Amino acid sequence: MDPMAKVKKRPRPKADSPKGFRDYFGTEVTERTEMLATIAEVYRRHGFDALESPSVETVEALGKFLPDVDRPNEGVFAWREDGDGDWLALRYDLTAPLARVYAQHRNDLPTPYRRYSMGPVWRNEKPDPGRFRQFYQCDADTVGAATVAADAEMCAMLADALEAVGIARGDYVIRVNNRKILSGVVEAAGLLDPADPAKFEEERGIVLRAIDKMDRIGADGVRALLGGGREDESGDFTKGAGLGEDAIQTVMDFVRSNEIVEKELREGRPINDDRIPPGPSITVENPLEGTPHVAELWNWAVLDHLFRLAINSKIGEEGLQELAEMRDYLRKLGYADDRIVVDPTVVRGLGYYTGPVFEAELTFEIKDGKGRPRRFGSVAGGGRYDGLVKRFTGQEVPATGVSIGVDRLLAALRAKKLADGVAAGESAGPVVVTVMDRDRIGEYLRMAKELRDAGIRAEIYHGNPRNFGAQLKYADRRGSPVAVIQGGDEMEKGVVQLKNLVLGAKIAESASLDEWKSQPAQTEVARGKLVDGVREMLKSVGSEKPDS
Amino acid sequence: MDPMAKVKKRPRPKADSPKGFRDYFGTEVTERTEMLATIAEVYRRHGFDALESPSVETVEALGKFLPDVDRPNEGVFAWREDGDGDWLALRYDLTAPLARVYAQHRNDLPTPYRRYSMGPVWRNEKPDPGRFRQFYQCDADTVGAATVAADAEMCAMLADALEAVGIARGDYVIRVNNRKILSGVVEAAGLLDPADPAKFEEERGIVLRAIDKMDRIGADGVRALLGGGREDESGDFTKGAGLGEDAIQTVMDFVRSNEIVEKELREGRPINDDRIPPGPSITVENPLEGTPHVAELWNWAVLDHLFRLAINSKIGEEGLQELAEMRDYLRKLGYADDRIVVDPTVVRGLGYYTGPVFEAELTFEIKDGKGRPRRFGSVAGGGRYDGLVKRFTGQEVPATGVSIGVDRLLAALRAKKLADGVAAGESAGPVVVTVMDRDRIGEYLRMAKELRDAGIRAEIYHGNPRNFGAQLKYADRRGSPVAVIQGGDEMEKGVVQLKNLVLGAKIAESASLDEWKSQPAQTEVARGKLVDGVREMLKSVGSEKPDS
Repeated sequence: MDPMAKVKKRPRPKADSPKGFRDYFGTEVTERTEMLATIAEVYRRHGFDALESPSVETVEALGKFLPDVDRPNEGVFAWREDGDGDWLALRYDLTAPLARVYAQHRNDLPTPYRRYSMGPVWRNEKPDPGRFRQFYQCDADTVGAATVAADAEMCAMLADALEAVGIARGDYVIRVNNRKILSGVVEAAGLLDPADPAKFEEERGIVLRAIDKMDRIGADGVRALLGGGREDESGDFTKGAGLGEDAIQTVMDFVRSNEIVEKELREGRPINDDRIPPGPSITVENPLEGTPHVAELWNWAVLDHLFRLAINSKIGEEGLQELAEMRDYLRKLGYADDRIVVDPTVVRGLGYYTGPVFEAELTFEIKDGKGRPRRFGSVAGGGRYDGLVKRFTGQEVPATGVSIGVDRLLAALRAKKLADGVAAGESAGPVVVTVMDRDRIGEYLRMAKELRDAGIRAEIYHGNPRNFGAQLKYADRRGSPVAVIQGGDEMEKGVVQLKNLVLGAKIAESASLDEWKSQPAQTEVARGKLVDGVREMLKSVGSEKPDS
Repeated sequence: MDPMAKVKKRPRPKADSPKGFRDYFGTEVTERTEMLATIAEVYRRHGFDALESPSVETVEALGKFLPDVDRPNEGVFAWREDGDGDWLALRYDLTAPLARVYAQHRNDLPTPYRRYSMGPVWRNEKPDPGRFRQFYQCDADTVGAATVAADAEMCAMLADALEAVGIARGDYVIRVNNRKILSGVVEAAGLLDPADPAKFEEERGIVLRAIDKMDRIGADGVRALLGGGREDESGDFTKGAGLGEDAIQTVMDFVRSNEIVEKELREGRPINDDRIPPGPSITVENPLEGTPHVAELWNWAVLDHLFRLAINSKIGEEGLQELAEMRDYLRKLGYADDRIVVDPTVVRGLGYYTGPVFEAELTFEIKDGKGRPRRFGSVAGGGRYDGLVKRFTGQEVPATGVSIGVDRLLAALRAKKLADGVAAGESAGPVVVTVMDRDRIGEYLRMAKELRDAGIRAEIYHGNPRNFGAQLKYADRRGSPVAVIQGGDEMEKGVVQLKNLVLGAKIAESASLDEWKSQPAQTEVARGKLVDGVREMLKSVGSEKPDS
């Protein structure tokens, strides 16, 4: 021990990561790194340039735009600079910092500014099992693009990114909506006063949250929230928006769109609305069964239904036109209705979205902790937000973006592999050169270096070499395919022993004596043939990654 | 504008990154990502596994181990969990979190535990021009390895990593020392009381800091700091260690090692100490000139000098033996004395190092802001620290590691390229499909997709298409090699125009009329030949990365 080390009298600190934070080991890290690189490549090919802004922003610059939270500074980790300085905070997403970066550097950036950004974000939420306060996002945004084409391309790029990281076509859909339609519905329900935009803000929030919950609480639950309020099974009461019967019916006709369309399609109602861009010209008797055109018909029919609802609202009409236009672009690009699903109930939080919104949902089932099948749900989303930069500059700057929740996507891919019986991607352990003789460590170091110079992952055993069993146990724990052994005898003979640990494990499990004899788990090679011998043994066990 | 957007009355926030933080754009990001991947591959090949711990730790777990700072919690960004909870802080390095991770998970980890880790760290320091409060580190550590072999391998791996990222051999040296030698010197100077290790702590700190400053303040400055104290040019007074004349001489003989050895070598003093492992058996008249053996002789001579100093201290002797052993391993591995330099003045901060220490220095000169040549200095370092895990568990766990300052290394490589006249690595901009006709955006989108599907980075212009000049200006700003143009006429004829922007820029700069005619900067190709035409044009301009 260094005599200069300071003497500590304090009690020992607890060795715990903070609540809601966790450590990631081995392939958990490398698989994420690979996924980020793959997505970055897709973004880059679409013309986006990299941006890395700091993890820390001023609270002032971040604003209160956390999408799912309605209160200022709620949900962020914040502190004050020494000496009554600025309040600083960890970023809670990558979009708020983008708005700051664009406002700060706009004279030096091209317009539109197209950037991608990936990295951790932090949320100061109550820790929950399986829910972490630090996680990765992976975003691409175009700032200064007002066209629906820019939104459509975001959806298309999201589909490309999902397929690039290994989500098969058919295992995901991208649900598309437009916030202006929702605004129109809210207006039609009487919750928008053009003379006083701030009026009914709370009620609008209640209505949007209710629509967002359609999946979970059903039509009756939504109806209750639109009216006087709702009591859930636990007895908790949620305040309602206080709408009258007519207004409730207007909203419910909209919320029940999917249900109504399904019924109509089953009944074979012909679809015919010349406001929808060209779609299928087919008529089928029972369109929901036995036809490959169901997906196409579906979007067609939903748009038709929405047009027929004829929500009496300029902004609603605008949103509907944009939604139809978006679907049209995507079809032209080859992103057919089997991947892109029009869904009027998609809300995407209360925050900053102002036009097209979309979210990617994985459609395969996995088992939850108790073995029950469940869907994985949303792993990515995005949309148009036109207000973020205006906060800084006063100028309206149209922007659109996509954000992929990399950790959720990784978890989904792992769950899928598990469900499909594919072995988890174990990192191949290093070849371990054991230490038989302390005085010849230099020679063991050289063996490991020779292997590495030949591209083989290798190390010497750096622990206490006294106990040889511990060395083999270590090699086992590391998943090493081969152990290299050279004691005094071997050195004198100019040879090394190569121990096949993969085969050794198999033999230990199940082999008969004959198998043991015919496949010796240990072979001797000349010292000069170390690399060749190891390489051959790696090949014989089909080591996943003999070369690192 | 979304009528649901909230009305804000507050003044506009400032669009500034917090003081001491900055944004990184384009190649600044991608070059770092590539460098991290390259270093990770070197670490991995040496047997290290990835670890990513959270950016946030409890202040309790981080401790006060910030290497260069002597006061608790100084230098970190810290805040308290809501409701009088734990104090949390951003990690200031990757080693303190490793100690926590190892202590927390030690029953599930192999021993030794070998991990690499890369990511940002944060220091709450006064912002300074060119000095940032968030920067990247890239570490590898072996926890549970007590041998000098483990330290030697860290040095070797650091050399491998530097060469892998593009630092040529000869452009760096790794300076090696051992903190036990420094402890021995301090003990010999009477500043170590085995009965009371805490005694003289302040004086020891002053002595170590003085040795560390030898380069900057010279022998007289160090002497003043060892004695009564030192007044610098600005008139600031630094308190001295208060040593007597004999003790000062002991320390100075050590501090001046390099100077003394150089003089002796010039005078041709034969070197002969059988305590040093086999070295060169040559004797040269004037060893510092005209011989390739200088580097080897140097290490040999420095070790010889240190042994002859015969510091009367058990721990000092131990450090010297370890230093000689370390050099011996490195020579056996082929890391000769031209890359590894024994330097007794290397200190590496006051913090936690307890044995071998080393730092990598770049030896080439670059120009500073005012055009004056300067050396780049230290870009990486590491050493042995045996106390970190003990804080948590009470058990002594030997550990050794290396940390690469990725941002400094990147800056050095860029400065070197600049000095060598190599153009900075500009990212190739995307092919830009211009928008001539709003009604055919779907078709423009499809052109961009066709190019991307062929592996070519491409996008349509997503800004306001009204002004065509703005579109070409945008393409120029993005560094686009080719613009694709299709107006009404071209559409009718079934062709597209390809504008060679690289050639166009050259012609605009300097071309004669003949050159203009012989190399038309714009060509027409059939719509069906879009991809082929673009590919050919990219090839003709030697676009660095025609395919993304």
